[in-house]
Amino acid sequence: MNNSNSDCIFCKIVKGEIPCHKIYEDEDFLAFLDIHPETPGHTLIITKKHFKTMLDLPEDLLCKIIKKVQKITKVVLDITGYKAFNLVVNTGKDAGQLVDHVHFHIIPRIEGDDRKFYIPPIKYKNKQEIKKLATKIKNSL
Amino acid sequence: MNNSNSDCIFCKIVKGEIPCHKIYEDEDFLAFLDIHPETPGHTLIITKKHFKTMLDLPEDLLCKIIKKVQKITKVVLDITGYKAFNLVVNTGKDAGQLVDHVHFHIIPRIEGDDRKFYIPPIKYKNKQEIKKLATKIKNSL
Repeated sequence: MNNSNSDCIFCKIVKGEIPCHKIYEDEDFLAFLDIHPETPGHTLIITKKHFKTMLDLPEDLLCKIIKKVQKITKVVLDITGYKAFNLVVNTGKDAGQLVDHVHFHIIPRIEGDDRKFYIPPIKYKNKQEIKKLATKIKNSL
Repeated sequence: MNNSNSDCIFCKIVKGEIPCHKIYEDEDFLAFLDIHPETPGHTLIITKKHFKTMLDLPEDLLCKIIKKVQKITKVVLDITGYKAFNLVVNTGKDAGQLVDHVHFHIIPRIEGDDRKFYIPPIKYKNKQEIKKLATKIKNSL
């Protein structure tokens, strides 16, 4: 973790070098409307310090950010009039993380908004395969 | 919130009435492999008590569950060998929440897994529209 990364677009937003449509700020976090929204009110919540992913966040900030997500989401839904949302945290390039600075997406949803996942049909070969994997994970926890 | 809801499939899993491929359990949470996985290792983390959505979770459980998500994800990635993941919490029917009992998805991702979002091209009409919305939300927070 660094306090700031000079190549990071979100660090530049935190420092005010790049403008944003800010909706919330405190000593730890900044929340703003995504300028490439999937739906109206699509919000990003980021840490002010530069952490690459949510796996790098210390527990106190992790707790604080999820509480902010809950609080901010309620207001975003209230203002947009939407009743549903996706909370999404893409972590790692292969998961679609485009900016290497932890950010939580709040994506308000409404019936017929046409946002869809394309999910390829993946299946475990058999019960043994899923059982074996579950056991391996369980034994490491 | 009720401790248990007799019509809820996840409450039945918590009570052991329906089997699951359990990977973690403590007094508050249960984690198991999704039997309709988007990718291998796709994990669900649920509260033992019945809460409809993450907006209904009290702050202490919210903190605890996100810490469990972080901990469990690290192990899931370690065991599957994947380096990326999506954390997804679908909230409300219009957001694709299929079971009305709060659940956090951990979806391991790997290059070329072909999981894609279909994102319709939404744009705010102009800068005024996004600015106005940001201001409305900001003033309510």
